[in-house]
Amino acid sequence: MTTRDRGGRRRGRNPDASLQPSREVNYRQLRNPFPMMEVFPTDQIADMHETALRTLEDLGVKVLLPEARRIFAEGGARVDEGSEMVFIGRDIVDAAIASAPKSIACRAGARRRDFTLELGSLVFQPGAGAPNATDLERGRRPATGQDYLEFLKLTHHFDVFQMISPQVEPQDVPTNLRHYFTTKAQMELTDKFPFFFSRGTPQVMDCFEMLSTTRGLSDEEFRANAHCYTIINTNSPRTLDIPMAQGLIDFARHGQMSIITPFTLMGAMAPITVAGAITLSHAEVLAALTLTQLTNPGAPVCYGTFTSNVDMKSGAPAFGTPSHFQASLAAGQLARHLGLPWRSAAGSASNINDVQAANENQFGLWGCLMAGATVIIHSAGWLEGGLTVSFEKMICDAEVLNMVAELCAGAQAGAAEIGFDTALREVEPSGHFFATSQTMERYSTAFYEPHVHDYANFGTWAERGSVDANHRATGVWKDILANFEAPPQDANRIGALQDFIARRTEEGGAPPES
Amino acid sequence: MTTRDRGGRRRGRNPDASLQPSREVNYRQLRNPFPMMEVFPTDQIADMHETALRTLEDLGVKVLLPEARRIFAEGGARVDEGSEMVFIGRDIVDAAIASAPKSIACRAGARRRDFTLELGSLVFQPGAGAPNATDLERGRRPATGQDYLEFLKLTHHFDVFQMISPQVEPQDVPTNLRHYFTTKAQMELTDKFPFFFSRGTPQVMDCFEMLSTTRGLSDEEFRANAHCYTIINTNSPRTLDIPMAQGLIDFARHGQMSIITPFTLMGAMAPITVAGAITLSHAEVLAALTLTQLTNPGAPVCYGTFTSNVDMKSGAPAFGTPSHFQASLAAGQLARHLGLPWRSAAGSASNINDVQAANENQFGLWGCLMAGATVIIHSAGWLEGGLTVSFEKMICDAEVLNMVAELCAGAQAGAAEIGFDTALREVEPSGHFFATSQTMERYSTAFYEPHVHDYANFGTWAERGSVDANHRATGVWKDILANFEAPPQDANRIGALQDFIARRTEEGGAPPES
Repeated sequence: MTTRDRGGRRRGRNPDASLQPSREVNYRQLRNPFPMMEVFPTDQIADMHETALRTLEDLGVKVLLPEARRIFAEGGARVDEGSEMVFIGRDIVDAAIASAPKSIACRAGARRRDFTLELGSLVFQPGAGAPNATDLERGRRPATGQDYLEFLKLTHHFDVFQMISPQVEPQDVPTNLRHYFTTKAQMELTDKFPFFFSRGTPQVMDCFEMLSTTRGLSDEEFRANAHCYTIINTNSPRTLDIPMAQGLIDFARHGQMSIITPFTLMGAMAPITVAGAITLSHAEVLAALTLTQLTNPGAPVCYGTFTSNVDMKSGAPAFGTPSHFQASLAAGQLARHLGLPWRSAAGSASNINDVQAANENQFGLWGCLMAGATVIIHSAGWLEGGLTVSFEKMICDAEVLNMVAELCAGAQAGAAEIGFDTALREVEPSGHFFATSQTMERYSTAFYEPHVHDYANFGTWAERGSVDANHRATGVWKDILANFEAPPQDANRIGALQDFIARRTEEGGAPPES
Repeated sequence: MTTRDRGGRRRGRNPDASLQPSREVNYRQLRNPFPMMEVFPTDQIADMHETALRTLEDLGVKVLLPEARRIFAEGGARVDEGSEMVFIGRDIVDAAIASAPKSIACRAGARRRDFTLELGSLVFQPGAGAPNATDLERGRRPATGQDYLEFLKLTHHFDVFQMISPQVEPQDVPTNLRHYFTTKAQMELTDKFPFFFSRGTPQVMDCFEMLSTTRGLSDEEFRANAHCYTIINTNSPRTLDIPMAQGLIDFARHGQMSIITPFTLMGAMAPITVAGAITLSHAEVLAALTLTQLTNPGAPVCYGTFTSNVDMKSGAPAFGTPSHFQASLAAGQLARHLGLPWRSAAGSASNINDVQAANENQFGLWGCLMAGATVIIHSAGWLEGGLTVSFEKMICDAEVLNMVAELCAGAQAGAAEIGFDTALREVEPSGHFFATSQTMERYSTAFYEPHVHDYANFGTWAERGSVDANHRATGVWKDILANFEAPPQDANRIGALQDFIARRTEEGGAPPES
């Protein structure tokens, strides 16, 4: 059996194999190679933007955090304290759009892990935010700290995940200490770009401190770039709750990145149409984005959307549907209308890692890719509309993402690739190309090598036990975990991080609220 | 339980349900809504075309059928009878490209089933040509006449399959009578555009006669349009065998359509590079296309490609890979270079209908869609690189194709869809949209309703037996077969068809060769 290092390169046990050049494709910094698809004509996109502005101006947004209402009021918005409604004039929104950065340099724990978020770049995250974990050996269960660590290791393993996401909630870790657990893990087990929840200022400040300590950053250095991010979900329709508003303010004040994502379902908390749902989502992003820019003009902020539809007979959420696909396209058009980097999402409503899960996830993925999404979250492992992350599905989806990353690298059709003299001329009619000059030069690097897809013929596959991709994936994630190696760390900084956590734990930690 | 009629519309048993307008989307005539993707710059595509012309001129093609060599020679090609090699000058090829129709009107058994093949149109076929059939109840077995009939009924059921393909080989029907069996089935069980194998002139003439009889066409009417098609695979590299060359001639002479598809695997019967493999494939299409146009200028002919890669360690074919995707893109660029309608293919190397099968098939499908393929074959059901067609996979893949067809219909973002007054204004912050004016007007028609995807939550799904998509698909195909209704037929013509078959059977049928 062979394993792969995190770049997807095969480490064979056969020493002869190491004499061959191995295929190396950079999956760490990707540009989207797919042509953009539009679902609505440009004038209708302008109408949607105009309607979103009108929504903010005339209908307003309910903002539950007094400090956020104060910032809006100081920025010129009309605030009704009694109803907690904030009415934001379009001049204020326009100024916020203008000051939001169009390109965000994201600094990870190692320079080769850095990336830039802007229109045209492409970043993947695995499925996030689930209360449950599942795999074929241990079954579906409330997620634990161990699950969190294992998913983190899997995320680190695959270069195609450039950002860390909060895949599952470690429910066995007390909420006042959970952010120490998740931050320590992100600092020790990976050098990729980390995620922090916005669960009150005390926890956020703890996280910033731990990150600065581990990375060796002064306050000034920390604020100068995005070193971490949070995800802000509005409470659709038109509500910004206390932790989310606080998170926007905290991250903006410190120059860290908020990804603003209204999570809406057409026909439930959003209009039943793609156009209506995305107009509402757009209005909510603009409100939240305006809060970040009023707090700290130029603060890094990523436009976002996650809109799918419900099944109108049962009210159940659906993902990877035609409406989900179109919603991604519409959001992409609006993000380009603003010029902002933006995130979209794949995902599945299926209850297990089956054909439905694969087809929904990949269908939603192509919607994101053709919409030009800068960050694609829930791109691997996400089941049950986000209630569970699956170890096997993460492995299977990573195969698809690797293949997409391969497409980012493009191909050549120069004289050497066409190969009239080194291939076409060398082979007689009905012959084969196994031994042409061109083949001999390229055979060890020509093609992507899968980690879970199996090309054995039926007889061989049956002899080996008729193992389907789902069950093969179990072997893959166990192999990755068994062979996991954390990236090198500065022992002094890690010591300081551990000291900080010990002290704060002794002090009682921090509650998940301000 | 509800079933669907062949347009994908739900037939509920609840009489109240029939009072609601139902969702009706035309899947029968589709236009490709996706932006075209290019893998190579235009000048490299021109180089590939130029190299293909040079290949035909300098390296030549081996043509095993004497009649074909005679036609090439009469058309001006240099023929070496000793080696059976034909060297085709570029002026001959250019003339053939010029006379090949750029738009082909395909006449089915009913006008609503007609479609046009040209750049921009989009037609799907299920997986074709397999010796085996498989399903979860009966297992994997050599395909029989019953399998053929059942697959034909499934193909007829889904509007998204506009063409009939020869899904499996009915191995229990003698080869001298098999074409009567498959033609009778296509005439009696469906009114979609039929397929005939090119297995010698006697069988092809029988098929044309049966078709004309059933459709009530004079010889002149038959020749005036494409009423059926065949698929021509070259023997790569650079060989045209006897039945294939004969098929090209027979179909061209009678004005019927050949889809020319070199089936090549990079690194095996084609160069290891996408550029080299597609250049070879392009040359072979041009040779075969030239034969059709020399036979009958203006004969309908469809450009084709099916190129994926082998696993270089085992030599096993792989499908739905990055190289397969890029090969589709390159072929699309060459087809557009010529202006011809063209076919590409999805497919899977997996041995069962699992996550690998789903991911490979859909990955390959998007390659075809973004390449602008006019006909996408093997788009449903195809396993083991074509050795088996699966009943369950056909159902699962049809779900994906239906969703693609939904995207073809597009969406609107007019004032009614944005719904400022009928949706956005009607709902308070944190409220829901279940009862807005806009929702009430659209809830029964807003969203695509799946036939196999399941949106039940985990608890409900587990209570119902934890059935995965694969096993649910068994219920779907059995339900379709149990409720199958053939389209209306002219009893006299069917009687004449049956008489013809009885007579020819008594005469001994026709051997599968000329």
